[in-house]
Amino acid sequence: MTQIIVVGELINSTRKSVKVALEAKDEAAIRRLAREQVEAGADIIDVNTATSMENEIEDMKWVIGLIHDEVGKVRLAIDSPNPKAMEAGLALCQERPLINSINNDSRERAFIEIAKKVEGDIVGLPMGGKTGMPKTLEERLEEVDIMICNLDDAGIDVSRLYIDSIVMTIGSNQEQGRAVIESTREIKKRYGGRGVKTSVGLSNISFGLPHRTLINQAFLAMLIEAGLDMAFIDPKDTGMMNIMRASEAIVGTDVGCLKYLKHIRKLVK
Amino acid sequence: MTQIIVVGELINSTRKSVKVALEAKDEAAIRRLAREQVEAGADIIDVNTATSMENEIEDMKWVIGLIHDEVGKVRLAIDSPNPKAMEAGLALCQERPLINSINNDSRERAFIEIAKKVEGDIVGLPMGGKTGMPKTLEERLEEVDIMICNLDDAGIDVSRLYIDSIVMTIGSNQEQGRAVIESTREIKKRYGGRGVKTSVGLSNISFGLPHRTLINQAFLAMLIEAGLDMAFIDPKDTGMMNIMRASEAIVGTDVGCLKYLKHIRKLVK
Repeated sequence: MTQIIVVGELINSTRKSVKVALEAKDEAAIRRLAREQVEAGADIIDVNTATSMENEIEDMKWVIGLIHDEVGKVRLAIDSPNPKAMEAGLALCQERPLINSINNDSRERAFIEIAKKVEGDIVGLPMGGKTGMPKTLEERLEEVDIMICNLDDAGIDVSRLYIDSIVMTIGSNQEQGRAVIESTREIKKRYGGRGVKTSVGLSNISFGLPHRTLINQAFLAMLIEAGLDMAFIDPKDTGMMNIMRASEAIVGTDVGCLKYLKHIRKLVK
Repeated sequence: MTQIIVVGELINSTRKSVKVALEAKDEAAIRRLAREQVEAGADIIDVNTATSMENEIEDMKWVIGLIHDEVGKVRLAIDSPNPKAMEAGLALCQERPLINSINNDSRERAFIEIAKKVEGDIVGLPMGGKTGMPKTLEERLEEVDIMICNLDDAGIDVSRLYIDSIVMTIGSNQEQGRAVIESTREIKKRYGGRGVKTSVGLSNISFGLPHRTLINQAFLAMLIEAGLDMAFIDPKDTGMMNIMRASEAIVGTDVGCLKYLKHIRKLVK
């Protein structure tokens, strides 16, 4: 097990403030989000400009340029449902990219073809191979098996893969919390030996509930205990970063609690 | 799985302020600790007057009288290394008591004899049967097996038992976190079918580290996911109660997130 890779999720055009910034070409807003996320501890910055529609590629390029100009070399996650935007974004990465994402739907085969051509890590959503969106633990694991087979067939090294067990809110179906935790644990057990890793976009867990960060924090601690490797979060949410560093100290991936102690010093300052 | 039983740990004579209150017979201080813990959500109030030495029994009786007078009927945990003080405390309980604690050391057999006579729940420390204080997961589980055998031999129903997997700080041995989590999970797997439950006095996990509550919070979330039934905590630590309620919502023991929603309403008020 290694320390959690933090993917800063804030530059996402499904967020209203980002959509507005893209439309207004508000450089300062994008630069600020990039800088603040890196300063707060993000290892990778996610870039999603999908809601710009026909301007998605242009906006993707503009945002990536601003990020590099603002914070220098940094890992980027290229987050798009459009293969052309994905390729355009990946071409501009200066560090090892994260391809966000592939799934098992045969209509989305283009993203696997891109992953064959472009070296980098891959977020895999275990869905679409048989069941659409998986609801149970069993459906998730069935889709995980399909994904591993697909990547093996494509000749893609599965050690590049971070499988996201697809978080849905406990507000409408309370079994979703346990399903994702158990799926994360089981993926590591089945495929950890081949280097397969796990990721999660966790904030959906609390959709519709008040004080969402509390649910997100408790969920993150549980997932880290289950073997999580990467998390898409708001790194500016201090409560989340606190719990993450504390969790790593407990499970021992933060050897000697050094990262925890450094985090606390920054916190107290 | 059920919701966590919260044992308020603050009326403990190893805490300096309590020791002072006992010496000064400071009624108001004891009353305040009782009321504040109950109001903050404690289901059981722990009573420990052990540092009063030859006055332990007298102080035990005095404290219990004050608690009942202040908050009415409430469950109590009688916490003593002295069998006579244990019996004196148990005799005054008005609700089902918690005997805190028994272990496997044959020299401490008196506590098992008390548990045979007095109905109530029991905190069991899996130590002293073979290895003194267990350090590894394996040593813990060996002591757990010994304890179950001892109670079976004594004719005590093990569904009364809450096993505390003995928390030691990650500050000096980082493997202690995982050992307690795995022990908690394994106890439920092995003996949950017979109604054996798990407890934890968790704050030792963070001894010697800064911002202890963060470590305690993350540890509590992980333990709840592993199947924890009871926790000795400071119920006035809002961060702890927040994470506890959020964790119960995630694992589904708080059906419909109702307790979480009620907690948040209280928080926001």
